[in-house]
Amino acid sequence: MTAYFDNSATTKPCDEALAAARFAAEECWGNPSSLHSRGIEAAALLKKARRQVAALIGCPDDRFFFTSSGTTANNTAIFGVCERLKKRGRRIVTTAIEHPSVLEPMKRLQAQGFDVVFLSPGKDGAVSVEAFREAITPDTILVSCMAVNNEVGSVMPVAAVRDAIRDAGAPAVLHADCVQALGKIDVSPRALGADIITVSGHKIHALKGVGGLYLASDNLLHPYVLGGGQEKGVYSGTEPTPAIASFGAAAEAARDLSGNAAKVAAMKARFLDAVRELPCVRVNSADSALPYIVNLSVLGLPSQPLVNALSERGVCVSAGSACKAGRRSHVLTAMDLPPAIIDSAVRVSFSRLNTGAEVDALIAAFCEVAAKYGKK
Amino acid sequence: MTAYFDNSATTKPCDEALAAARFAAEECWGNPSSLHSRGIEAAALLKKARRQVAALIGCPDDRFFFTSSGTTANNTAIFGVCERLKKRGRRIVTTAIEHPSVLEPMKRLQAQGFDVVFLSPGKDGAVSVEAFREAITPDTILVSCMAVNNEVGSVMPVAAVRDAIRDAGAPAVLHADCVQALGKIDVSPRALGADIITVSGHKIHALKGVGGLYLASDNLLHPYVLGGGQEKGVYSGTEPTPAIASFGAAAEAARDLSGNAAKVAAMKARFLDAVRELPCVRVNSADSALPYIVNLSVLGLPSQPLVNALSERGVCVSAGSACKAGRRSHVLTAMDLPPAIIDSAVRVSFSRLNTGAEVDALIAAFCEVAAKYGKK
Repeated sequence: MTAYFDNSATTKPCDEALAAARFAAEECWGNPSSLHSRGIEAAALLKKARRQVAALIGCPDDRFFFTSSGTTANNTAIFGVCERLKKRGRRIVTTAIEHPSVLEPMKRLQAQGFDVVFLSPGKDGAVSVEAFREAITPDTILVSCMAVNNEVGSVMPVAAVRDAIRDAGAPAVLHADCVQALGKIDVSPRALGADIITVSGHKIHALKGVGGLYLASDNLLHPYVLGGGQEKGVYSGTEPTPAIASFGAAAEAARDLSGNAAKVAAMKARFLDAVRELPCVRVNSADSALPYIVNLSVLGLPSQPLVNALSERGVCVSAGSACKAGRRSHVLTAMDLPPAIIDSAVRVSFSRLNTGAEVDALIAAFCEVAAKYGKK
Repeated sequence: MTAYFDNSATTKPCDEALAAARFAAEECWGNPSSLHSRGIEAAALLKKARRQVAALIGCPDDRFFFTSSGTTANNTAIFGVCERLKKRGRRIVTTAIEHPSVLEPMKRLQAQGFDVVFLSPGKDGAVSVEAFREAITPDTILVSCMAVNNEVGSVMPVAAVRDAIRDAGAPAVLHADCVQALGKIDVSPRALGADIITVSGHKIHALKGVGGLYLASDNLLHPYVLGGGQEKGVYSGTEPTPAIASFGAAAEAARDLSGNAAKVAAMKARFLDAVRELPCVRVNSADSALPYIVNLSVLGLPSQPLVNALSERGVCVSAGSACKAGRRSHVLTAMDLPPAIIDSAVRVSFSRLNTGAEVDALIAAFCEVAAKYGKK
């Protein structure tokens, strides 16, 4: 048995997602743009999946657009908004703890002459509303703030950022990267107030190869990936129907947000109760963080050897995020944690589909490794 | 039975591709960037698929990079090269009959001030070498020429364009969109002389949701989609391993280029022998076109009603390409065909996996519909 607790890097496709992908690949493999029977079948499948994902987000079907990943959704949002609004202002506000698919576009925009402000989080891993209020000026064109941080699970004040934009009188579009939040908290436009919401399938037990974005209105952005005009021109390219169908099915299976959270909170509590007793363990995630992600350090044991020791014992966790393997965490650095804590940090990320036996295996392996290698 | 002859729009996943995708989705679903057992398995799967696709292209494994589609591969190639070379020149040479995922980026570059030349084809649907020679100047930074046209099957003189670039002393990178050529002709860098070759999985019986590009050397382009730095930074985003694995398996299954072409040529010959006798039929593809794609018109019967009539009889063909449904073909227009021919044109596109019985069904339905509705 592998006890998999790296669900913020990717998840195991759920049965519903696998069945939907299989149907799309084996039976309903037409091109949704084709105007014959095979194409019409595929277009119907696309429509169903769009409805399912939109329902989980809590937005109208026709305002949700599929992309090939959370990364392409974030690139489309950020570059697309700035291309459209660059004549109205050059200022962009974001945080220092965004995912690389937000940070790297921001760095490129900075190199192109945009004035990009990267706000730092507090000790709890969240950026304060006050920091946003100070940073947002009347010429700010884009504010990009993730809903939940992928390394420590902190919840960001997106809805309050909406108010800050309004109070500043800024033309800014509010983009919320909800890749780590979808299926965990209410990310609906009503709850967050975001103009653009980006999501990814494979973080919620769909296949890898699909993401998407909610757009509050038409013409919020200039398309970034150009071609055949699929997804009403928002994102071109033949739609990856197997992954899309799996996203729809996985979204439908994930809709009991409070039930999921309760299950996961119980797992997290069991894990923390067991490991907090060890003197070498430091928990880096705040108590206010979502239960899905626990970042913690074993003093004296660097991150990767800890990951390796657990992997040898059939337990998968990660050193930081999979998206920046081998580099020191920019999130923990921004949280101003001591280097010894940062360099020994690992992320344990839970899913509603983890089992009690897997949590037992996690606890046993973690305690054994920490006792053996941790600083006394 | 559906007799599917729209293989240039998309193909039915082959058994090898389905098995590989299933394994990736059900058994080997880790994130290839993760440094634990699940991630290491997924990275091995990615490596295998890269070797398989590179072998079909005929390029070194480590010079091939996966993307999410042919469209993202073309966007990456075109925008990426121009971003890198914009200080060396502003001139780009391409053709009027490229796929929209090339044409639309070109139009955007034109709007940004690049001097883009769109070369027209001759009656055979191919652009002449002479046209390229006249257009390529010493300050041309990019030449983008598809290897095989997606609507009429014409073969373009890519290797000779290489010589034209050299003779002009231009710094131009040569990009060949090989989406319709892969698995049909030799697209290797040796054969075509291209610096960048773009391909797509779902045109060769892999799942939709994967494409890729061969890059002759490092630093040919600036990455276009930014994030976690996957694919050595060329294309970021968690790799869609099910689609990627299916692409590898499909590529391996497609390697007998001459055998495939012989099978398809026999199907095409049977079809044309049967329909050429009908007085209302005009074949728009040249005799020199690849056997995989036959564009033809039934005089007096507009394209979409013809597609519909065939679809009702269980036969799928397309009106032009799936990527620009509903618009008049830019390819046939550029070939200077009469409007009556263009508006009644359909594309019949074959695969090595079509059966004799399917060809029988195609011939029967086509002859019936043409006799019933075609102009006497």
